[in-house]
Formats: sequence, C-alpha cells, structure tokens
Amino acid sequence: MTNKLPDIAVLGATGVVGREILNILEEEKIKYNSIKFLASSRSAGTTIEFNGEKHTVIEANENVFDDIDICLASAGGETSKKYAPIAAKKHCVYIDNSSAFRMDDNVPLVIAGVNDDDLKMHKGIIANPNCSTSQLMLPLKALHDKYKVKRMIVSTYQAVSGAGLKAINELTDNTKTNLVGMPFEPSAFKYEIAFNVIPQIDSFVENGYTKEEMKVTNETRKILHLPQEVKISCTAVRVPVYIGHSEAVSVEFEKDVNLDEARELLKNTWGVELRDDISTYTYPTPKDAAGKNPVYVGRMRKSIAFDNGLDFFCVADNLRIGAALNTVRIAKKVIEMNLY
Amino acid sequence: MTNKLPDIAVLGATGVVGREILNILEEEKIKYNSIKFLASSRSAGTTIEFNGEKHTVIEANENVFDDIDICLASAGGETSKKYAPIAAKKHCVYIDNSSAFRMDDNVPLVIAGVNDDDLKMHKGIIANPNCSTSQLMLPLKALHDKYKVKRMIVSTYQAVSGAGLKAINELTDNTKTNLVGMPFEPSAFKYEIAFNVIPQIDSFVENGYTKEEMKVTNETRKILHLPQEVKISCTAVRVPVYIGHSEAVSVEFEKDVNLDEARELLKNTWGVELRDDISTYTYPTPKDAAGKNPVYVGRMRKSIAFDNGLDFFCVADNLRIGAALNTVRIAKKVIEMNLY
Repeated sequence: MTNKLPDIAVLGATGVVGREILNILEEEKIKYNSIKFLASSRSAGTTIEFNGEKHTVIEANENVFDDIDICLASAGGETSKKYAPIAAKKHCVYIDNSSAFRMDDNVPLVIAGVNDDDLKMHKGIIANPNCSTSQLMLPLKALHDKYKVKRMIVSTYQAVSGAGLKAINELTDNTKTNLVGMPFEPSAFKYEIAFNVIPQIDSFVENGYTKEEMKVTNETRKILHLPQEVKISCTAVRVPVYIGHSEAVSVEFEKDVNLDEARELLKNTWGVELRDDISTYTYPTPKDAAGKNPVYVGRMRKSIAFDNGLDFFCVADNLRIGAALNTVRIAKKVIEMNLY
Repeated sequence: MTNKLPDIAVLGATGVVGREILNILEEEKIKYNSIKFLASSRSAGTTIEFNGEKHTVIEANENVFDDIDICLASAGGETSKKYAPIAAKKHCVYIDNSSAFRMDDNVPLVIAGVNDDDLKMHKGIIANPNCSTSQLMLPLKALHDKYKVKRMIVSTYQAVSGAGLKAINELTDNTKTNLVGMPFEPSAFKYEIAFNVIPQIDSFVENGYTKEEMKVTNETRKILHLPQEVKISCTAVRVPVYIGHSEAVSVEFEKDVNLDEARELLKNTWGVELRDDISTYTYPTPKDAAGKNPVYVGRMRKSIAFDNGLDFFCVADNLRIGAALNTVRIAKKVIEMNLY
C-alpha cells in the first residue's frame, strides 16, 4: 500500500544549506501534500519563494511536527538534539544534517545510492553524513565492492561555505582587505583564510585528530559497514575556496587493482562523473563542481606507495552532495520506499 | 689551507627566487671577494641594489664564469643545461635551482643541514632540491634517523609564487576579477586559481603522477639515501596562496614511534620550528611562514592509518627553504668546507 503524498517541512530553511535544500527540492520535483518552512525565532516571519509561491517562515516548536511526515533539517546539532526525538515520537521522519545522531547505533547514516537498505532500520531519525565523508562514499563504495578497502589516507581541501554564511562573507572581506594591504582580524576562522590555508576544521579530540577528521574515519566505517581492521586517517584543511570540497585520496585494497577496470567502474557508477584525462589536462577543480550534483573524480593512478593501491582526486559541491542534495535524495528514497 | 674569499655570481638575479637570494645573501652576511649579478639579455642593464651599493645586471654568457668561484643560479632548466657544464669546466661551482641535474648521479642533491657530506663528491655542479621536497627533508631526516622511514604519503598545498612572477600577478588579477563578478581567462595556470585549487603542478609522466609529485619521491630517496623498498607517493595541488607551501604528511616507520619523543626530537632539530599545541590552536599556516626561514611543523599525531606512523603538517616559505635560502646555505657550506 502506498502512503498518501507526504507533508514536508524544511527546518533551517534560511541557512546556507537550507536554501540549497529548497533549490534541490524544486529541481528534483519532489511531490508532497504540503510543505512548511521552519527556522528559529530570528528568521521566523521572513518570506521564502518556493515553486513560484510565497511562503512565510514559521518558528520551529514542538507542536509543529504533529502534522509533518518528513522533516529535512539543517539547523545545527543543538536544534536537532532538541527536536529530532520529538519529531520521531510524533511519527515524523527527521532527516538530520547535523552530527548529533550520526554515530548513534539506532540511527542509519545514509548516502543515497550507497547504503539505501540501512534506511529500513530507521526509528524516526536518519542522519546525513559529514560533507567530507559524503562525497567520497559514492566512488569509494564502487571500488570497495570490487577490491575491498584495507587502508585509506585522505587530505582535504575544504571550502569555507562548509562553515556557513559568516565564513563565506569573511573570505570576501578578508580578501578585499588583503588586496589593499590592510590588516584583517578574523572572527569566523581562527586565522586569516584569505590567501592562506588552515589545518584545523572543528575542534580537536584526544588522539590529536580533529572531529572533522575522525568523522571521515568513523562515518566511512559505518556507511560501508567496514570492520575496525580497516584503517582510515584524514587531515582536514580549510582553503580559500567558496564552494567545493576537494580530497586527495590514497587507498590500499585487499585485492589486485587494475587501473583501466577501476576507471570503467567509476565511469558507470551512479552519482559519480569521471573527469580524468591527463592528455587533455582534464581533472576536477572545485570551481567547476560548484552548483553541480555529481561527485567528480580525476587524477586516477596506481599508487606507488601501496602494492594494491589507487590514488585519486575527488571534488564535489559541499553544499549539495555534502549536505542538501543527499538530504533531498534521502527524503526521495523514504518516499519511494514508503518509510514514512 | 683556506681558499681566498670567493668571487660570487647570482644568475637569474632579477627573478622571484633571484631577488630572494639577494635578500638572504645580505641577511646571512656571506663574505665574498666580489659579486656579480647575471640575467638574460632581457634584464641585463637594469640596476640592483645590494648591501647598500648599486650594481648593473650583466648579460650571462660563457666567458663570465672565467673569474667566478661560486654561481648561485636560478634561471630555469634550459639556462642551467647550457651554462652549468661550462661553469664547472671553468672551476666555478654552479649551485643550481632548476631540476636539470637533480637526478644526475654525478651531481649531489643537497639540503644544507641534512646531507652536507654529499657536497664533497661534487664535480662542479650542485643541485638544490624541488621546493616541496626541500621543506620536508629537515623534519623527515631527524625522524628517519631515529625511526627509519618505510612509507610516506604527502599531499601538498602549494603557493603560486612557486610558479613565478606571472603566477603571482595572475592570482591578484583573477581574485580582483572574481570579486566584481567578471569572467577571467587564466594564462599562467590552466584553470582559474582564485578561490579554486588545481590538482596539477608541472607536466604528467607515464605513471599518471606529475613531475612535481615524482620529484618528492625521487629526490627524497636521493637526499636521504633511501632504498627503493621505501615507498613514497605525493599529490601536488596548487592553492590560492601567495607564499608558503604546506604539506599534509603521513609516514609509516620501521620502528615504534613515540609521539612525545618525536616532538622532542623535532624541537631540537636545526632548521625546524615546532608550532604544535592544539590546546592553544597552535599550528603553522603559510601566511605565518612567509618571509621566515624555519620549516614549521604542527598537527603532530600518532597515525591511525599505520601501526608505526606519524601524521604532521609541515609549512615553509617556498621561496626561502624551498629555493633561495637553501641555495645560499649550500654556498655557505661550500665556502666553509673549502669545496670551491
């Protein structure tokens, strides 16, 4: 039996990711019975245009979830900790962009097209992985199915939009200030981000890695159902780019890797677009990936550091596959699979 | 017996690295009998101020090396291929910044303070390593002596000044153009570098790596006298930074690594400055390293990808330790060791 069309809400509708969720809901032509736009009291009352109609943003509160089937939430960890359990209790499927529930054993952590079956065990909350993990999962899953990941080392080149609107504006202000040779006092970042790179994203944990780096390790394991023996490490670095995360990835596999075969595999992987022809200097850059849906992969080569290894460079729009796009894709799957 | 004070020349004196060589020759108070400034016909005749005196730049030619003992050259591979053998034949020690002779078995490839003894086998030409390799050698040598490097994976975040004056100006022009929302046609780079990263530096070789990446592999092996079994790979990426290369480095060692001991080791390594205290968000960034001599190391942590591994982030002024500073330091060693 098919459910009725869902009543949908977007929580955090006025934020950087929230606005991208609206764009993608339009693009993907998601069908719904009703749609509401929720935000904090600060943004409530403002007007949003969606599918050609004007909507007033409503202040989020406990009661709003009574008549919502699916909530696409991008309002930060604290808001999700407060509302996700309430929504779940009220039979609203809460798709959460924050890190609050990602490692909860009762919460599926899903990249649409990678581990959709995990959605079936949801108990009201579904988590969207961290941006750095998300974009890597589509190519990595295909390679893992064929060659079995044994070890992976990732270095990231992450855009400022991952840190929100304030960070985007700070890159502009900092850049303009530098260009006229004036000093600049950063506030969204700990150090100047203009014409600089900052080797810290999120706070540090006890082993000296950052939370951002450990997310790549832990979320990758959870999404691909990898055992603890698989070793994964990451260095996460902020770069002066507006949109588009890049990752230099070195993977060691259990099985023999054939480069042409691996290329063919990724060429045929849903959600991935190979941009990989060194004879024509074809490889992805964040500027090309911004505003687009695919995860772009280039610079594929047999690793000279591992016997059965591959190196590649993976680029995607961090606001899309890393956040809004996957949230909408999860909602779409939840609807298709009648999981609301 | 001590030689007379040397007659010195700087070849490529008007380039980005050449000008830095002049600054450092002044700072390091190198003693010489005479000094000449050489360049191509294009720059010959211009005036340079050095140690408070005005000098006219002389056009380089074969005969100029007759009465020069040490030539600090930063004029590109083609110029060095032409002049280095001539200089050597005329008993002028040619210290070369280009890649032309680096992998030549008859040419020592030296980082001052790392493998000075290799200078003794010079036959007139001494090579200065590539910038990405250079900055890594000072910390790596200390760690290698103690723990023995087995495998290393490097991802670089390289400044545009490594590509010369045209690239520096292009970053500025590209950035200004982007800030007013106008299109920009790159010429120094294959793609726009402003608010972007480009995963290609130098041309590609057959195995899919770039020359820049293979330099890290091959030059590291030569400088540290590592056997072929030691596996090294690199992904070299250009970032929109003016000065200062950064490197995310993962090293696997033969022996057990103790983090505190490794930190202590680097704290006491000549040429290295530890900037590593996550409790105070202390780690290096290229903006801090620009214009300074040390190789800065931070983000030190036990690797969670290797059993005996260390991860760290290494930042240095690419025009200094990566080029001009090491050239001058080599000249200083050549003088001290009476090798001219």
